[in-house]
Amino acid sequence: MKATVIYGAGDVRVETRPDPTIVEPADAIVRAVRACVCGSDLHPYRSMAHTEQGVPLGHELLGVVEETGAAVTTVRAGDLVIAPFAWSDNTCPVCRDGFQTACPHGGFYGNPGDVGGQQAELARIPLADGSLVAVPDVDETSPLLPSLLTLSDVYLTGYHAAHMARVSARTTVTVIGDGAVGLSAVLAARQMGAERIILMGRHTSRTDLGREWGATDVVAERGAEGIERVLDLTGGLGSHVVLEAVGHMPAYEQSYGVVRAGGVISRVGVPQYDDAPVGFASLFGRNITLTGGPAPVRAYLEDAIPQVLRGEIDPGRVFDKTVAIDDIAEGYAAMDRRESLKTLVAF
Amino acid sequence: MKATVIYGAGDVRVETRPDPTIVEPADAIVRAVRACVCGSDLHPYRSMAHTEQGVPLGHELLGVVEETGAAVTTVRAGDLVIAPFAWSDNTCPVCRDGFQTACPHGGFYGNPGDVGGQQAELARIPLADGSLVAVPDVDETSPLLPSLLTLSDVYLTGYHAAHMARVSARTTVTVIGDGAVGLSAVLAARQMGAERIILMGRHTSRTDLGREWGATDVVAERGAEGIERVLDLTGGLGSHVVLEAVGHMPAYEQSYGVVRAGGVISRVGVPQYDDAPVGFASLFGRNITLTGGPAPVRAYLEDAIPQVLRGEIDPGRVFDKTVAIDDIAEGYAAMDRRESLKTLVAF
Repeated sequence: MKATVIYGAGDVRVETRPDPTIVEPADAIVRAVRACVCGSDLHPYRSMAHTEQGVPLGHELLGVVEETGAAVTTVRAGDLVIAPFAWSDNTCPVCRDGFQTACPHGGFYGNPGDVGGQQAELARIPLADGSLVAVPDVDETSPLLPSLLTLSDVYLTGYHAAHMARVSARTTVTVIGDGAVGLSAVLAARQMGAERIILMGRHTSRTDLGREWGATDVVAERGAEGIERVLDLTGGLGSHVVLEAVGHMPAYEQSYGVVRAGGVISRVGVPQYDDAPVGFASLFGRNITLTGGPAPVRAYLEDAIPQVLRGEIDPGRVFDKTVAIDDIAEGYAAMDRRESLKTLVAF
Repeated sequence: MKATVIYGAGDVRVETRPDPTIVEPADAIVRAVRACVCGSDLHPYRSMAHTEQGVPLGHELLGVVEETGAAVTTVRAGDLVIAPFAWSDNTCPVCRDGFQTACPHGGFYGNPGDVGGQQAELARIPLADGSLVAVPDVDETSPLLPSLLTLSDVYLTGYHAAHMARVSARTTVTVIGDGAVGLSAVLAARQMGAERIILMGRHTSRTDLGREWGATDVVAERGAEGIERVLDLTGGLGSHVVLEAVGHMPAYEQSYGVVRAGGVISRVGVPQYDDAPVGFASLFGRNITLTGGPAPVRAYLEDAIPQVLRGEIDPGRVFDKTVAIDDIAEGYAAMDRRESLKTLVAF
């Protein structure tokens, strides 16, 4: 099969690799219908040291089940399925709490282990019963495929940010970052009833989609100037909720600059730092809550799929470029240059 | 009047200072009936650099109103009142949100400004209407005075930790620290219905009170060994909620070591650090929420006073030593040597 492998910064290749096979009885093999490139894939694309063996890429997948292991009971060959970006058993206490990305039996795709990436024609899905969710009555020609694909990660990551911050009609929300996750956070916050949504971002083509999805204000300034603008827009008080969809330290600093006393900073951008200010001056003195993490999309899929099928949300609009698997390096390059917001891979 | 002033580490003096007077129409002057020494007072007692002018001490006060400014309407001379450790207007949007310690018009006692400390015979209370709460039908001889005094800070600080963490009957709680705030957090968590409360502390006389108040397990070990013990007690999963009542970095590190995936660390120990681990390995990867800050005790007083008056809670049991104002330096020394859990000052 064809699979995407990264060998170092800027060096993404499509290679022929052995087809994955059922290793454990709980596995399934899924044939890719749609995959995509994640903002988090740009981190290794920009900074990874060269490696001889390469690391498989991709963790967002909509596909059709080809084969299942002997223990799999909830999906079967021919089902169109969404594969969350992490696998999980969905039965342990951690999963039952709704934190499937921390499942002690689960894991992440695209690491150099024995489970490959999902920017590939075929993928091995461990713990298929706990991970895959079938989409009924949709075939491979449906115009809903891009929106369904976003439920494997990007839309539900934005949703997770808003969910952890308990966004409601009473909360003012500031979203930091106009990437696909930030825009998804706008859409999710609006779905939860937020009437005031401030989007911090500088790319008009992106913030325009944010406005369509519910952003009432756009702040292009950053740093101290951006903080002042948000404080101006909120009567000097700041925002009840900040959804941080970037992951770099300046976005963290901006977050505690614009959040209201007693408010919540919810992070879903993977932090590119370990230590950060949490003392009296930044978080503690004003009772700021810091929350968020890798989205347990598995917990949200059953509710989100019908929303897409009924046309209530259209998160697939984040895709503005489509490539074949052979041309995926072009998708990475376009996203790296910010020419593409998010690139879809059609098989 | 007699007032307590600190001139540097270990140098606490009782001096005669001018009686405070009404400065603003919203002020009240309160005559002290009971005051006490706070664990946070030990920070300057242990480390403050020498200063020529001295800094007034104290921020926990139960007293009788002597005089009110022209604008004060809710308390009057003769009322027995509790003075929260921070003053606030209690009418602005931040106060209405329930975060009076961040009131933009409020402040803290004991700083070298024009408002003094409360380990003194008389205290000036700014914004008296927004700050003071009268206790009806209790006189200066009541045995409930110590418990009522704890509502100015220590008990409601423990309560705040549990409140911000949304403790309920379904949450396993670990309390880090067997000081008066930690023990108060145990009592508050039990009041909120928590059935499993693990108290991490090494002083048997203190943890014994913790057991009386609801701790089901005591872990005396610290660091990696303490973390392992808590994980053992929680089936390897960790604690839904950690109430951190210390404020030093080892307690923070212990917190994320014992918290369950998706759980909450609620800090009320004033952090003696600015930066701390918040990245993938510590908080983000397992969706840990970090919350807490200075307790807005004003928000909780109306509910807590009747609980004390009805005898439902007895938080005054944290006091194990009583001194006169002239002997307050002895109280500091006893707390510093851990001979006293918390020292009461009777006037």
